[in-house]
Amino acid sequence: MAGVSEFGKNEAGKGITRLAYTPEDFAAQKWLLEQVKDLDLTITQDAVGNTFLRRPGKNNALPPVAMGSHLDTVIQAGAYDGIVGVVGALEALYMLKDEELVAPVEVIIFRAEESSRFGFATMGSKLMTGSATVEKLSSATKKNDISFKEALQKAGYDPANYKAAIKAKGCYKCFLEIHIEQGKVLYETGDQIGIVHNIAAPTRFKIIVDGMADHSGATPMGFRKDALVAGAKLILAIEQAATEEAKNGTVGTVGVIDVEPSSINVVPGKATLWVDIRGVQEASIKKTLQKISEAMKTVSDTNKVKVTEELLTADIPVALSPELAADFAKICTEKHLKFRHMNSGAGHDAMHMAKLAPTSMLFIPCKDGISHNPAESAEIADVCAAVEVLAAMVKEQANK
Amino acid sequence: MAGVSEFGKNEAGKGITRLAYTPEDFAAQKWLLEQVKDLDLTITQDAVGNTFLRRPGKNNALPPVAMGSHLDTVIQAGAYDGIVGVVGALEALYMLKDEELVAPVEVIIFRAEESSRFGFATMGSKLMTGSATVEKLSSATKKNDISFKEALQKAGYDPANYKAAIKAKGCYKCFLEIHIEQGKVLYETGDQIGIVHNIAAPTRFKIIVDGMADHSGATPMGFRKDALVAGAKLILAIEQAATEEAKNGTVGTVGVIDVEPSSINVVPGKATLWVDIRGVQEASIKKTLQKISEAMKTVSDTNKVKVTEELLTADIPVALSPELAADFAKICTEKHLKFRHMNSGAGHDAMHMAKLAPTSMLFIPCKDGISHNPAESAEIADVCAAVEVLAAMVKEQANK
Repeated sequence: MAGVSEFGKNEAGKGITRLAYTPEDFAAQKWLLEQVKDLDLTITQDAVGNTFLRRPGKNNALPPVAMGSHLDTVIQAGAYDGIVGVVGALEALYMLKDEELVAPVEVIIFRAEESSRFGFATMGSKLMTGSATVEKLSSATKKNDISFKEALQKAGYDPANYKAAIKAKGCYKCFLEIHIEQGKVLYETGDQIGIVHNIAAPTRFKIIVDGMADHSGATPMGFRKDALVAGAKLILAIEQAATEEAKNGTVGTVGVIDVEPSSINVVPGKATLWVDIRGVQEASIKKTLQKISEAMKTVSDTNKVKVTEELLTADIPVALSPELAADFAKICTEKHLKFRHMNSGAGHDAMHMAKLAPTSMLFIPCKDGISHNPAESAEIADVCAAVEVLAAMVKEQANK
Repeated sequence: MAGVSEFGKNEAGKGITRLAYTPEDFAAQKWLLEQVKDLDLTITQDAVGNTFLRRPGKNNALPPVAMGSHLDTVIQAGAYDGIVGVVGALEALYMLKDEELVAPVEVIIFRAEESSRFGFATMGSKLMTGSATVEKLSSATKKNDISFKEALQKAGYDPANYKAAIKAKGCYKCFLEIHIEQGKVLYETGDQIGIVHNIAAPTRFKIIVDGMADHSGATPMGFRKDALVAGAKLILAIEQAATEEAKNGTVGTVGVIDVEPSSINVVPGKATLWVDIRGVQEASIKKTLQKISEAMKTVSDTNKVKVTEELLTADIPVALSPELAADFAKICTEKHLKFRHMNSGAGHDAMHMAKLAPTSMLFIPCKDGISHNPAESAEIADVCAAVEVLAAMVKEQANK
């Protein structure tokens, strides 16, 4: 992680910003591939930039055992989210270097797992599994940036050719991903490993509030249609709706707000809220969304503003392989590692890979549950324990 | 106004963006000066870019009668705010072209009246009247822009030399400014001219909320320190505090909010609110600020976030010249124009010029009171009426 984290490093205390498809993202991958030259892997890339590092087996007609994660980060990120899964997979290959394996093994570096740049998450694995189109993934371009389609072009990929990246079901024997938990459960219970059974699904949408821009000094309070004041009410309504469903594992966040014209002397005429709702229970997610819809109607009426919404994604919670989870539990027990069965609140590339092959994930604890933050931190001993379990699983699966 | 409004024109419906010290700002002024070459004015500029167009009098030892306003705009502005005062003053000179006047007359084009770029308003007139330093005016740089000091340098001015722009009290006989009202009073009463007696003063400050950035999927609701949720509570508290003082003419606005890290999948770790409070009664302004302070403390305790504030400006309401107002009223009566005595909710360069010389302002109606908005509009007949009154006043003052 230390070497990779040099790419996109910000000023002290501001962590790392290595957004997908930026020069930093490409440089980090290039550097990492140079470090593992001695593994003699065959390196290929698909039509949207997902990268595949293959180690041959005794029988290369067999579907490979796959593992991996991503190298891109959020804005002001830590050094572990995603990177642990890539570096851990490569480390597992080093542990298995002298073993003869029947099936080939493949490490996948997915592109654009984080939504920080283009408004959509797990873009590489979505495209690889036929779960999205380039057009759709270009629809949420942020102010001051180029669209996903333009970013593909700029990086030398042909956006029109994205379907060439789609892989068929059964092309892998299985898919395995190590990731930091990004929550507090393992850190607080003291378990060293989490075996993931379900992945919560994000529903993401924009709420657009259209009010009226006016002079801030000369427009009396009663004559305003302040889009930010209306937006503030919606932020609190979203917070309340999610809090009421917290017992069912649902969370709700407004992570981005854009205001127009954004001047201290102008009453805001427009506010756009970027909303992220997640849960493992579909009924709870629906109830939360229903409450937000009601709040939008109330605020529209009370504040005399127009409130509209634009859906970005509505994913369904994903169940991973119970068989692989049982195998992971067996390996952990054999190695005397403290582990627990759990769900993932965050989305991962694994949730799309589950369409192609039986899939499982291992979580490792992160300090105070902090992630997407420069203070993100994991113990090297915990990373090593997970890599050992992963290597044992790869060996077992490749020879099965 | 039509010619000037070509500079900084946005896509249809988005008005004009001609921020201070940008190439658009300089180009607009250059173009305008070319149009009035036949007035044979002597053009000078001070150390920070305020521009002076002087017409000589019979006795050039007398302090000139001054008038003027600004050419810079807010983001997505209309075509009248400021521009009417500059073009109107030049038009008055055309009306007086064949008159012999004793004192010289000067049109002033002030720089950076709008705070949209640097977070401070009336920067040119503040510097000219010794009411601010370049250092102070550089302290509120917005994300993604250069500081005021850097902008001065880039435009070829020496920031260290800004004191050379300060003018002495008595250097002008008087100062007169035409401006659109930017409120609904004249439009609704049907008066053609407003004679301004007091200018409301803005108190501006940033509120900084420090929470904790966390993964939006993996951080349960109860474990969050969401800076934007806390910020939303403050936006509503500011709205409420100002509404309670609306009867005393006070208004309160959060025009800008910056969120960090600003990702849909990250709980906001930091939110910065840019607040603008204005009034004509000092006691009412104080009461509003007191209520906001109390809300900051409550939100800090309830939401477990750190809330701090940073003062940008705290101006005192300004009384203009009652004598000039009486003279204006006399001229309006002679010309059979419907006028009213009133106050200004917005700040203007005139409020600083009042330190140097007796100062007065004329307001003209704007449609629906809309300003700082592409829909800003004024009747040409109303502009002409004000220019006639202004020309009459200039003649009277220059020969007094």
